[in-house]
Amino acid sequence: MSGKIYIGVDLGGTNIKVGICSAEGNLLHTYEGPTGAEEGHQAVLDRIAQYVKQIVTDSSYTWDQVAGVGAGIAGFIDLAEGVVLAAPNLKWENVAVRRELEERLNIPVAINNDANVAALGEAWGGAGRGVQHLVCFTLGTGVGGGIIIGGKIVEGFRGMAAELGHIKVVPDLEAIQCGCGQMGCVETVSSATGIVRMAQDAVGRGEVTTLSELETITAKAVFDAAKDGDEVSIRIVKRAAHYLAKAMAAVAVVLNPQRFIIGGGVARAGDILFDEIRKVYKLNVPPVFTEGVDIVPAQLGNDAGIVGAAGLNL
Amino acid sequence: MSGKIYIGVDLGGTNIKVGICSAEGNLLHTYEGPTGAEEGHQAVLDRIAQYVKQIVTDSSYTWDQVAGVGAGIAGFIDLAEGVVLAAPNLKWENVAVRRELEERLNIPVAINNDANVAALGEAWGGAGRGVQHLVCFTLGTGVGGGIIIGGKIVEGFRGMAAELGHIKVVPDLEAIQCGCGQMGCVETVSSATGIVRMAQDAVGRGEVTTLSELETITAKAVFDAAKDGDEVSIRIVKRAAHYLAKAMAAVAVVLNPQRFIIGGGVARAGDILFDEIRKVYKLNVPPVFTEGVDIVPAQLGNDAGIVGAAGLNL
Repeated sequence: MSGKIYIGVDLGGTNIKVGICSAEGNLLHTYEGPTGAEEGHQAVLDRIAQYVKQIVTDSSYTWDQVAGVGAGIAGFIDLAEGVVLAAPNLKWENVAVRRELEERLNIPVAINNDANVAALGEAWGGAGRGVQHLVCFTLGTGVGGGIIIGGKIVEGFRGMAAELGHIKVVPDLEAIQCGCGQMGCVETVSSATGIVRMAQDAVGRGEVTTLSELETITAKAVFDAAKDGDEVSIRIVKRAAHYLAKAMAAVAVVLNPQRFIIGGGVARAGDILFDEIRKVYKLNVPPVFTEGVDIVPAQLGNDAGIVGAAGLNL
Repeated sequence: MSGKIYIGVDLGGTNIKVGICSAEGNLLHTYEGPTGAEEGHQAVLDRIAQYVKQIVTDSSYTWDQVAGVGAGIAGFIDLAEGVVLAAPNLKWENVAVRRELEERLNIPVAINNDANVAALGEAWGGAGRGVQHLVCFTLGTGVGGGIIIGGKIVEGFRGMAAELGHIKVVPDLEAIQCGCGQMGCVETVSSATGIVRMAQDAVGRGEVTTLSELETITAKAVFDAAKDGDEVSIRIVKRAAHYLAKAMAAVAVVLNPQRFIIGGGVARAGDILFDEIRKVYKLNVPPVFTEGVDIVPAQLGNDAGIVGAAGLNL
């Protein structure tokens, strides 16, 4: 096969996932192996290099076709220097990932944090194809985000842009404390954690809900109960959607994106979530911010990290 | 004199201001004349071309040194096409300003809206010199804004980015309707209009304040009374600062700018305003968004528009 290829690395605490993407952002091959973080960062970096070489060898492409290697890593990253300042799930501090991988692979390497990379993946090869200005919200344990303007990741002064989970939208009288120390962040309500908390609170108060029959309440159990018509669960999902939409309205007047992409486990709640998000968003922005603007689910799921990492070398 | 020069045009409803800037963003010469909007857009465009030629002729520079001409215009602009879609204060609709001026001047022309251009002016030659990521709030009749990332204006999908006055920060129970149709926009409180309204309300309620002695309450009168210790005026200025800081906190977690620049007539309230903004901002963001981040007054005043317009051709 001819043409340039782009390699992406999704460096997780348990597994390293590597993929080859075409110049169009299509994921062509993947390779996965253990991280082995307990052996220290040099061993992990050796393993990444080994997996990258392996996937090219196993493919129909040659090393000369590789335009570069990108890696997405959960943690604080000095983007200018390509250094991981702190990655708690790997127990890394001050690891010069870019330099170390470039020495091992003799090819350009770029790194960025996992949320930014996932947004770039959706922009390049997922729900944002062809859109230049978009904002991704990832609703998981927390609420993460990534911003793409003119096809590029917005990083901010200290690489801290797109901390969208910490937009404060819950009114003071209803607000609870967020992990960040602030009160009323959208993450406290619109994350899986927030949904489980609201469900546990409702059951604890003795509200009439099918959730009370469950031993363990998960976000998925709340979505399932909502789909089956459980009023308490419907209220909780709508509340998560409501505050997410308020945060999106704030982002809209700041950046005027063409598309919002909603991913992460909570997005699997489906129409009940998206219908409410679209309704509340529209009520909270002037009309010009709804014309031609859409709100769609993410498409790439867990592959967004590999695709976006590959896209760092575009 | 040698080196490239950049010409900026601030096209107002009454006057056209033209300036020559150095490559370092220093305003070297200015020229001002009437807009004559009542004669129609062709006459106004002729006049702009005439003023631009005049200022170069009057200077020690030659036409060959002109890198380009930029214009800032209050209105809705199709940035890709360089067309003013609507400029109410000029009574313009669908005027192809870029093409018309390029035909008259035979030189590259760029246009943008007045708020974006003012932000670029501060970034290039004012309070944002040397800073790559900054956000400007202009507190005037309304609350306007401009966002510079990587030294460039953020325009958004429909050129509607940085409508910062319409970030909704006032709690529902205290919110009033904004001109945009939404409730609780920061513009309803932190603009000169908002300050005058709050002062009129206080006087109307019979609160004890020196403002009640005035025939006409202006924002400046409220600042002056606040500086003289009038408790009602101090409360009003602090309220304007409080909600502005909340809007800035939302912008901070979205974009992580290094600097916020506050301009417009309300910024002349000085320390009483800025001290409260800095205090409330710090209370409303995680610490990483305050480290190395500063909040400063604009420096260029009304010249920001000329300098930023000139900077469109950088």
